[in-house]
Order: sequence, then C-alpha cells, then structure tokens
Amino acid sequence: MAKTNPGRFFEDYTVGQILTHAVPRTVSGGERALYHALYPARHALYSSDAFAQSCGLPQSPIDDLAAFHVVFGKTVPDISLNAVANLGYAEGRWLKPVYPGDTLRSESEVIGLKQNSNGKTGVVWVRTRGLNQRGETVMEYVRWVMVRKANLDAPAPETVVPDLAKVVPADQLVIPEGLDFSNYDFALAGEPHRWGDYEIGEKIDHVDGVTIEEAEHMIATRLWQNTAKVHFDLTFRPDGRLIYGGHVISMARALSFNGLANAQMIVGLNGGAHANPCFAGDTVKAWTEVLDKAETSAPGVGAVRLRLVATKGDVQFGLRTDESKYKPDVLLDLDYWALMPL
Amino acid sequence: MAKTNPGRFFEDYTVGQILTHAVPRTVSGGERALYHALYPARHALYSSDAFAQSCGLPQSPIDDLAAFHVVFGKTVPDISLNAVANLGYAEGRWLKPVYPGDTLRSESEVIGLKQNSNGKTGVVWVRTRGLNQRGETVMEYVRWVMVRKANLDAPAPETVVPDLAKVVPADQLVIPEGLDFSNYDFALAGEPHRWGDYEIGEKIDHVDGVTIEEAEHMIATRLWQNTAKVHFDLTFRPDGRLIYGGHVISMARALSFNGLANAQMIVGLNGGAHANPCFAGDTVKAWTEVLDKAETSAPGVGAVRLRLVATKGDVQFGLRTDESKYKPDVLLDLDYWALMPL
Amino acid sequence: MAKTNPGRFFEDYTVGQILTHAVPRTVSGGERALYHALYPARHALYSSDAFAQSCGLPQSPIDDLAAFHVVFGKTVPDISLNAVANLGYAEGRWLKPVYPGDTLRSESEVIGLKQNSNGKTGVVWVRTRGLNQRGETVMEYVRWVMVRKANLDAPAPETVVPDLAKVVPADQLVIPEGLDFSNYDFALAGEPHRWGDYEIGEKIDHVDGVTIEEAEHMIATRLWQNTAKVHFDLTFRPDGRLIYGGHVISMARALSFNGLANAQMIVGLNGGAHANPCFAGDTVKAWTEVLDKAETSAPGVGAVRLRLVATKGDVQFGLRTDESKYKPDVLLDLDYWALMPL
Repeated sequence: MAKTNPGRFFEDYTVGQILTHAVPRTVSGGERALYHALYPARHALYSSDAFAQSCGLPQSPIDDLAAFHVVFGKTVPDISLNAVANLGYAEGRWLKPVYPGDTLRSESEVIGLKQNSNGKTGVVWVRTRGLNQRGETVMEYVRWVMVRKANLDAPAPETVVPDLAKVVPADQLVIPEGLDFSNYDFALAGEPHRWGDYEIGEKIDHVDGVTIEEAEHMIATRLWQNTAKVHFDLTFRPDGRLIYGGHVISMARALSFNGLANAQMIVGLNGGAHANPCFAGDTVKAWTEVLDKAETSAPGVGAVRLRLVATKGDVQFGLRTDESKYKPDVLLDLDYWALMPL
Repeated sequence: MAKTNPGRFFEDYTVGQILTHAVPRTVSGGERALYHALYPARHALYSSDAFAQSCGLPQSPIDDLAAFHVVFGKTVPDISLNAVANLGYAEGRWLKPVYPGDTLRSESEVIGLKQNSNGKTGVVWVRTRGLNQRGETVMEYVRWVMVRKANLDAPAPETVVPDLAKVVPADQLVIPEGLDFSNYDFALAGEPHRWGDYEIGEKIDHVDGVTIEEAEHMIATRLWQNTAKVHFDLTFRPDGRLIYGGHVISMARALSFNGLANAQMIVGLNGGAHANPCFAGDTVKAWTEVLDKAETSAPGVGAVRLRLVATKGDVQFGLRTDESKYKPDVLLDLDYWALMPL
Repeated sequence: MAKTNPGRFFEDYTVGQILTHAVPRTVSGGERALYHALYPARHALYSSDAFAQSCGLPQSPIDDLAAFHVVFGKTVPDISLNAVANLGYAEGRWLKPVYPGDTLRSESEVIGLKQNSNGKTGVVWVRTRGLNQRGETVMEYVRWVMVRKANLDAPAPETVVPDLAKVVPADQLVIPEGLDFSNYDFALAGEPHRWGDYEIGEKIDHVDGVTIEEAEHMIATRLWQNTAKVHFDLTFRPDGRLIYGGHVISMARALSFNGLANAQMIVGLNGGAHANPCFAGDTVKAWTEVLDKAETSAPGVGAVRLRLVATKGDVQFGLRTDESKYKPDVLLDLDYWALMPL
C-alpha cells in the first residue's frame, strides 16, 4: 500500500545522507520503573536519587542502556526494516545522562556502503546520534547492517568502508559533569570491589539466570518503540518470535550486577555481536572478562573495559568454536567501558 | 456473601438513574509508559512533550484510548458484571485531553431499557461521562449491553430506546484548546501523508501483526482497573480467558500508525462492534477504511472519519459474510473521528 | 567466584549484628502504575490523589504492600539467599506512608539464632526496618528463616529466641498523620460497608480469581529488586519457577477489595505463613476472616484485624487438615491490621 512504510532498501542509501528518525520520546519515572521490572537491574546509581546525588549527579538518570534502546528504536523503520542481519557496533559513547522529563530523538548519517558480491544485498554503515530537547547529543554510535536490494538492477554504489576504531580510546570517554566517586558508599551499592580489585584478564561468572518469556521481551521492545515485526508476530518466521538483541544486552548487563555492582555507568561501546538468535524459553546467563582499565580525570572514578558474554547454556567462559565462529549457545559478545569507584 | 458486589441485574436499572462509579484514578507517566509497553503506539503527539508543545498543547497527553479505558473500567462493576454481551457504542466524544497528574472518575446515566422477548435478559443503554479533578467532562459515550435478569418475575420496564446519532456530526467534535497543526513536523511524526492525501473510500492495510499473550492483556486490563473475572480466571470459561475488547481496540489503533501516523488525536467514537472474541495466541492485524473527511476551525487541523477493523487472520479487507454477520476472523469494527494535519 | 555474592550462611550471623542492605530505591508514579497493572488493586486511597486528600493525606501513597516489597527485596541477598524456608513474620508495623519521590533503603538487626538439632541448618530472626531519604522508619517487621550452614563444623551459637508478640496490640498501631475518615466517600470507594458492619468471626469469600502467568510474577518480583534465582531460572528447580510469596500476598490483598473495599490502609502485620508453594498456572482466590476490631484515636478511623487466606482451589473457607498442617491448596495465611471508616 502506498501509505505504509516499505522501509529503505540498499539502493536507497547514499553516503553523507542524513536520516531524521521519527517519533521523539519523553521519558519519565514510568520508563525507569519498567526497566527495573523487565531486567534484574540493581546498580544503585540508576535506582536511587539519593545515591546518584551522593555521586555528584542531580538525580538518578535513566539506565544508559534504556537511553540506548530509545535512540536505537527510532532508527529501525529507516535502517533495519529490510535488514538481513545486524553486523556490528563501534565508536559508541554516552555523552550526557538522560533524566526523567527529557525528550529524545535520533538522527543518523550514512557513513559507508558496500554492495555484496551476490548483487542482492549490501552493507550500510550509519553513525546514529540521540539528541535531547535542548539539541544536545546524549549518545552516539556506529552500527552496520546488511540490507536487501529491492531492485537488483540498481547499480552498485562506490564502496566506502569507514575506518572505525576497534576500541574507543579511554581519553575520549566522556565523564558526566560533576561525577565524583570520592564518597562512594560501597555498602549501599552492594559490593566492596573497587576498580583496583579487578585485574585485566579476570573472568567473572555472574551466576544467576533468567528464563525469557514472550510477554516480557515484547513489552520491553515496544517500550523502546522498536516495532520490527519479527519480534511480535508469531506467524512471521517459522522459528518463532526473534528476540530483540537489545533485550539480551540489557538482561546480561543486569545479571552482571552480581560481581560488577560497582561498574555503575556505561560510557563507551567498543563493539558487539549478536552471536546467535534468542527465543522465549531460553535461560540467559552471563559472564564478563576484564579487558582493560584506565584512569579518568573525575575524582575517584576509574574506567574498566569489559567483555560481556550472554549465553543460553552453561557459562564455563566459552565463546568461540574456532577463530571465526561463536559457539551455538553464545547469544551476545559485547565490549564496553564502564565507570567504577577507585 | 453479603459484603461482595453481586453486580446489577436488568431489573435493577431505571431510566434516568445516575450511577456514580467507584475508584477514581490519578494517572502519571507510569500509565503512559505502560501504554507504550503494551501497544506498539508511536503517534508522536502522545510520545513527546516537545512534539505536543509544537502542536499548541501544554505537554503530551495520555493516549485518548487510555483515557477511554480508565473511564470505561470504572463502569464495569456497575454495568457489565452480569452482562451477556456488549452490544455497541455511539455518540462518543473526547472533550479535554488528560494529562499526567489528572484524576479521573466516571458516572453514567441510564438512558434506555428494553426487556427481551425471552423474559430473561434486557438491553440497558447508558451515557457515561469521565470527569477530571476539576469536575470537567473529559469524555463521554453511549454504550449498550445485554444484561441478565436475576428475578425472572420482575415486571418488564417501559421500553425506552434512545435515539442515537449514527455518526457524531463533524461540527460537534471538540478540538482541544490551542491545537494548531500549522507547523506540524511530518518528519518527526513519521509519515508525509496529510489530510488532503487521504480519499474517502481509501483502504489501508496496516501490514504489521502482534500475537497476543495472556500476561499482556491481563496487565493492560488491570491497569484500567477493569476486574471482570472473564479476563483473568482461566477456570471461569471453557474456552479460556476472554480478552477485554478494549485491548483489541488499542492494539489495532497502535498498529494503524503504519499508514496513519498523522491521525494523531481521537475526538469522536461513532460506533463499534466486538465482532468475535479474542484469545491469547491470536495474531492481531488491522486495516482502515476512510469513511469521511471534514474541516475544523483549528489552524491546520482536519478531521477524518475512519473504520478500523482488527482481524486475527489475513487482512484482505474482509468484514462480513453477508449483511448481518461478521466473518469469523474479524475481531473489531470501530468507527471513529481523528484529527490530522491539513 | 570471589567477586559474586555467595550469601550469608547460618554461622555468619551473630545476635546484635546490623545488616545494611544494598540498593536504595526511589519510587515514582511508575511503580504505582505497575502495581495496579500487576494486581487487581482498587483501594481508592491508593488510586486517587483527590480521594487521598479527602482523607487528610497530602496525596495518594504507594500501596503499603509495595512499600513492604521494596523493603523486603533489599534483604534477600543478605538474609534469604541460602535460606531453606521462610518461617514467619511478626510485629510488622507501617509507620509512615511512602509517596512518589521517596527513596527507600533497608537495614536489619539479627535478634535471634537457634541451630537445628540436625546440625546442618539454623533459624535466624531479624528485625528489618525500611527507611526513607530523611532517615525516618517507614515500616518494620520481624522475619525468621531457616538458613543452611556452609561449614558443618562451625560451633552452634548460643540459642536466643526472641519473645515476639502474637499480635501487634491495637494501641501500638501508628495512624498516618492527618488521616481522617469523617468525610469518607463510600460511593467513590466502591462499597457501603463500614467498620461497624463487620463482625468478629465473619468470613468473606472474595469471589474473584486470577490465573498466574510467569511473565507477571517475574515482572513484579524484579520491580522490588528481589533477584532470588528460584523465581527466574526455570532450570534451577525441577518443579519450575517458585513464585515470590509476596506476589501471592499482593494478589490476595487486591482480590479482597471485593468485600473489603474500605479496609484501606494496612498498618500492622501480625503473622503470616506461605503455606504451600505457588506456580504459574495456579488460579489464586482469597477469603478473609475478621479476627478482631479496635478503635483508634483518629477521626472516623477504626481498625480491623483480618486473616487473609489465599488458595489455589475452591475457597470454602478451608485452612488446615488438622491443627498442624495446611490443606494442600492453601497458599497463604496472613494476619494483618487495616484501617476502615467508622
């Protein structure tokens, strides 16, 4: 039908194109309560205004991943409606905390294009920015997806593959204004482990597991106004409703509280792969590897680079069968920077 | 038991009776977040304070259907506890937007009664009003239901069948104070189609589908404090938990975003039929027919009269098997007025 | 793993020990909306700011049981992670209403210890307090649990069994400041029955039932940041996900609206037993017995002591097979004080 959105196909993108994504969103305590109802999220800075204030913030922000999901959800109708696969993330940074009352919108710039050799699909790279009601960028990230061509005769565009950082350098992480962990209350935060207690190479089994329900992942995915049909319509794919990859990210991050209660704020997204699809009935567990550590300019605040792996089987720190392939029970391999008290 | 509410039976109603419905409700950002979590709702005016302000409103209102559900839910213990069937709606108008912080209560006047020839049931017509904390009517509608008699020997009341408008005349629609679509941002709203782009008789397949889960319809129905047992108790009916008809209305309306993103505000309810029962596992899809168009006195604002049909099968614009009977996969046939930018 | 929380074992507790529980929580309209979405809660004082104001309160508080769940949830990692059984509650009092914007934290004092004769487990008694951001105690209760020993060779502590009141005396109930039921609106509250209409010994079948869904109890339990694995991980126990006992308490209390709509505020918890485990698919029903009545010093306010019983079968007011054992379909036996208009 002419009135409904067919989504963009590979030949509809050009490098330099700016996409203004629709449906701005004002967030409130409602989004925060739902985030805590959908994920076992317990990081104190996102749970308590008083705790956030003791860390120098005006109040408790909306979870960084909730902000990411809101920004991401808006891009789906313009970027991934005809996507075959979500290939990767890079150069993600959180630049401003999002507070109840803020209104978020998203825009993306096409920064790369490469038609595949089969002539039927191509890869599109976009840099997406989330903006608040004051026009300030609250977060940004690069994402690339494989998109179908509608017209196989459309000529291949000039190949532009962006040069992306493998890791956001620690000195480019943005620490929220005023953040100060000098008087951090470890008892209220839930664990005694400081930045200095974590070693590069250390692995943590987060122990707990959550069995995923259809109602929960749909409630979450709709809350971010991500309306991709594969997540909601049981008749659309023979293998069932595919769970939004961001649901697995949030579930794994929340589970990682047990062992990383003090990895409070997410400030960088270095990369990420949705290794295998997740379906209702899967029991998600998680483990983390400490990849790097860095100091910051903020009082009492250190940064840790973490690999967060979600699985639907036993943890055992397994990841790949060989160099190129994830084990079948690995759901997510995420590489991020978080802030932690020194 | 003497203390619990047995509900009213047909012989308990008299024309002119005023029913003050219990349990007033203050709505907040929590109700808004839940509405967006339960339905794929994306109309920008109900999602963003900034967008609503650019349309002349003080902030983003609670979804018009959420306001309807809150008002409707309160009437259930007094009107439909012993109802056999919900027969129809008419003369519905939204008169004031509902904002977070408002407290809603409901009252109904019995405006018609007709005992059925079997002597066991009768039809009750009520005009229900939702009022806010300032005593202002925020919406009103007529609804009629078939209700059982408890005492079959009770005499039949004088038959009074109200003379109801088939359609709310366009000049009786109330446009929210200050509403102005002159500077409407079509990019942020999600679609470019204006009032002038829709033709009477045009049909739109809204494409997307959502498979309904038990947890979701119960969460929604409870949120509106509609506690009719058929929606919650699996042991009550042999065919399972019957889904609140309003859940299907909101699901279909939210799905209609795809093709009607600019049909922002609902201002009139001309009629509606819950054609067949809906159960968990059904995949709801929707289509719309443009029935009429009208101008309004507000700057840049037009009105469209829409037939919204929800189905649990293929869409194909099917509705009735013949004049009198709905097809078995039709769930809802709703006739409403919405406001759209010129 | 060294970084994750193994929980405390019996030998880790000493009488007089103060446990500061982690993860303070700011509540908002989001928590209130979710409470009403998860339970068929209709008590007007918790639904409407206007109604609460007409009863002398500044606004509608968060449901007393929601406050209890928030306070209780924080204690789980310190008290019940290695618990074999939740044995009882006593001396519970609600001391201050909790309003949106308040931040709650919890602390517990160990007030009793008794190693069991098998040498493998022991009973721990704690008095838990919930505090708000001003350091005021909003509620307190005693709870005792059976906890495993990790080191069977650890010496048995000196036995200390606290002397607990069987019932909170009526004159120790704390009535919220300003509470006044002199102008109580029975029509808006939903039922005409006053304090004087209830007789000691009277039993009420609350009629309605709700069939429990996995998604719902998990959403509720996470909202209170109770992350005990048994509630979420389907692979953890052979009999499925055990439902948090507090979910049954809230479900039964909400169902009791039908017959006890005017038992508005909960002010005392005399005792409680989770008689049998509850699983998804169970249909919860409830009945109440009036155990006692008392006057209070607040204008128009009486107190009723109620036994609230939740079952997963027919109600029929059954409770025990003999003196010592609950019937297999009894889920909950709760003894509490509520405030009601005279």
